[in-house]
Amino acid sequence: MASHSLLVAPPAALSKPLFIPSRLLLGPGPSNLTPRVMAAGGLQVLGHMHQEVFQIMDEIKQGIQYVFQTRNPLSLAISGSGHCALEAALFNLLEPGDSFLVGVSGIWGQRAQDIAERIGCHFRPQALARHKPVLLFLAHGESSTGVLQPLDGYGELCHRHQCLLLVDSVASLGGAPIYMDRQGIDVLYSGSQKVLNSPPGTSLISFSDKAKNKIYARKTKPVSFYLDIQWLANFWGCDDRPRTYHHTTPVISLYSLRESLAHLAEQGLENSWRQHREASEYLYTCLQGLGLQLFVKDQALRLPTITSVVVPAGYDWRDIVKYIMDHHNIEIAGGLGPSAGKVLRIGLLGGNATRENVDRVTRALREALQCCPRSKL
Amino acid sequence: MASHSLLVAPPAALSKPLFIPSRLLLGPGPSNLTPRVMAAGGLQVLGHMHQEVFQIMDEIKQGIQYVFQTRNPLSLAISGSGHCALEAALFNLLEPGDSFLVGVSGIWGQRAQDIAERIGCHFRPQALARHKPVLLFLAHGESSTGVLQPLDGYGELCHRHQCLLLVDSVASLGGAPIYMDRQGIDVLYSGSQKVLNSPPGTSLISFSDKAKNKIYARKTKPVSFYLDIQWLANFWGCDDRPRTYHHTTPVISLYSLRESLAHLAEQGLENSWRQHREASEYLYTCLQGLGLQLFVKDQALRLPTITSVVVPAGYDWRDIVKYIMDHHNIEIAGGLGPSAGKVLRIGLLGGNATRENVDRVTRALREALQCCPRSKL
Ligand SMILES: Cc1ncc(COP(=O)(O)O)c(C=O)c1O
Ligand SMILES: Cc1ncc(COP(=O)(O)O)c(C=O)c1O
Repeated sequence: MASHSLLVAPPAALSKPLFIPSRLLLGPGPSNLTPRVMAAGGLQVLGHMHQEVFQIMDEIKQGIQYVFQTRNPLSLAISGSGHCALEAALFNLLEPGDSFLVGVSGIWGQRAQDIAERIGCHFRPQALARHKPVLLFLAHGESSTGVLQPLDGYGELCHRHQCLLLVDSVASLGGAPIYMDRQGIDVLYSGSQKVLNSPPGTSLISFSDKAKNKIYARKTKPVSFYLDIQWLANFWGCDDRPRTYHHTTPVISLYSLRESLAHLAEQGLENSWRQHREASEYLYTCLQGLGLQLFVKDQALRLPTITSVVVPAGYDWRDIVKYIMDHHNIEIAGGLGPSAGKVLRIGLLGGNATRENVDRVTRALREALQCCPRSKL
Repeated sequence: MASHSLLVAPPAALSKPLFIPSRLLLGPGPSNLTPRVMAAGGLQVLGHMHQEVFQIMDEIKQGIQYVFQTRNPLSLAISGSGHCALEAALFNLLEPGDSFLVGVSGIWGQRAQDIAERIGCHFRPQALARHKPVLLFLAHGESSTGVLQPLDGYGELCHRHQCLLLVDSVASLGGAPIYMDRQGIDVLYSGSQKVLNSPPGTSLISFSDKAKNKIYARKTKPVSFYLDIQWLANFWGCDDRPRTYHHTTPVISLYSLRESLAHLAEQGLENSWRQHREASEYLYTCLQGLGLQLFVKDQALRLPTITSVVVPAGYDWRDIVKYIMDHHNIEIAGGLGPSAGKVLRIGLLGGNATRENVDRVTRALREALQCCPRSKL
């Protein structure tokens, strides 16, 4: 093409330096990166097919097996966020015409339903025995309401009906016990940006042999090449063939993920679970000291990572969230989906789950309740 | 669930420190990060819904408009690699039953065809007039062979036949002139890990009004929620509604992308094009000085970013690539798809496109040709 002058000039906004303020992230994620994970993010890139990167991928696989408590060889990281892992699960497990069940409805079940319908599957509101669904979806940690879904028994129930069990542990992994193999979970996925304190952008997934067999016996190709598990399994060294290029993996994000899995392995899962339980129990006490009410009444059903608080009468949740951000540089969040407008959500995720952070957010909340406008009741 | 002992122990491999060697990446990508981009990778994360991140997203949009030379409001980054951007384009533009054309076959055209077939579209080998395809795919930079595809004329041709033009500029953007609006390109995408010297994991995409209208008039939802452009357009502030949470964007990767777009805007597109032309012409001279043959004979059709060299007679390409990696810490690559076994590929991408790097790879190649085994001819 002949040389032309440029139609669009360099944007002025890009000539300013990048400025990122420090902020304590006590919303439902992302959470603050630990120093070790941050350091990994500042390293130089390597090729996605270099031996060192294959080694890191192998270590990530082992880290996933540990944090999921599974021996599944088909365990790998997805090059995308939690939703991308959910799509990887549904795209590969379901074929057009399959029936699909959501155990308890909530925002993540709704999104799973939306995705399943896009690929031509039938959503069934209930009844495992009648509809012979291929797959049951459960969110272990319902981050929108702060509810922890008990998982025991579902694996056996599903398998009695030739149904696979798919569990979302994006918000719960590392914060509440989950035992993939022992609980009979067929597909488990999680995110990088919650308890793992890694940058958002990658997610973890693992498939039982039953799930794997279903995928390898598909009659149709999954709709996505990017998320085709047979390709990904090869690239992640989960089959016997030499690895072939599939897509360029997010190498730097894999460094970070490796470091956060290493950190959790060093700390020990049980210690991490205890840390989250203790921090959240301390938070409950402090919130009740402020006269606030917890949204989930039954303590056994509270998600230790994300606590939902009833918006106190007369206040607008937006004012409280904004006050705490503006005056204390702390993020807390409002509700989401079914809980929008009703709750405030406070996340204590991974390294952020400390008494010191609970004290900080309690002070900030106390001040907000004094300073934010309150309508006459 | 009752407390259980752990079945899977913390993996020993994760207790070793992470070690990343320095390496000069002169393959077809990823390329070395510039210091400014590396610094951005080491920053603390912010929430994906924070004002500062929305500001960064707006700056990325403007950066895309500049590097693509377009005024399209619907310009944004995809939270995934180049293949993910290709899927975003095809998933949103095609509906089941649509016809789809690949202009010139190559590895990227094959992958586009594979994806289009997964979502129920008909691939047509040729004939714009006869099959009334909805979309024509062209790879501007065919990174597998080192061929630069001229684009002039295709836009008009397509529009005469009510067909949209989709162009892959993953390997060419910033290295060879491309003018999205002037050349009548309806959808253009590129990657982060080539000339932009950003970590792999995000990609750039832009849609003309024609393409946008087609998407907004769809009868069916695209198969992917993660890549649904109507959701993404909202989250990227490309429509008039307030931004609502869609997925957690890879915040740190967006910092890096912003910095690499800022760098390219500062340098100026035309200077970047010239830098790649000069570096590659110098490389041609040096390669010919070693008695090597360029795979693409016609200089006008050579991709200035990735140069393909015929594997010299008697050598195994694997030996040469391995020698240069082991003795010089430099990555160059073999062929891919149709060019596998036939060529060596040398990438001079962004900040890596310097005479000094050409000298380094030339010295390494000279030594490799002396030291690698050569079969009798
Ligand atoms: C329980 C749960 N599932 C899924 C997701 C979606 O993950 P992402 O936003 O990374 O796509 C989230 C995100 O907050 C979540 O909390
Ligand atoms: C021209 C071209 N298109 C598409 C891709 C795919 O991009 P990714 O590997 O980031 O998915 C590449 C990657 O090398 C490429 O060179």
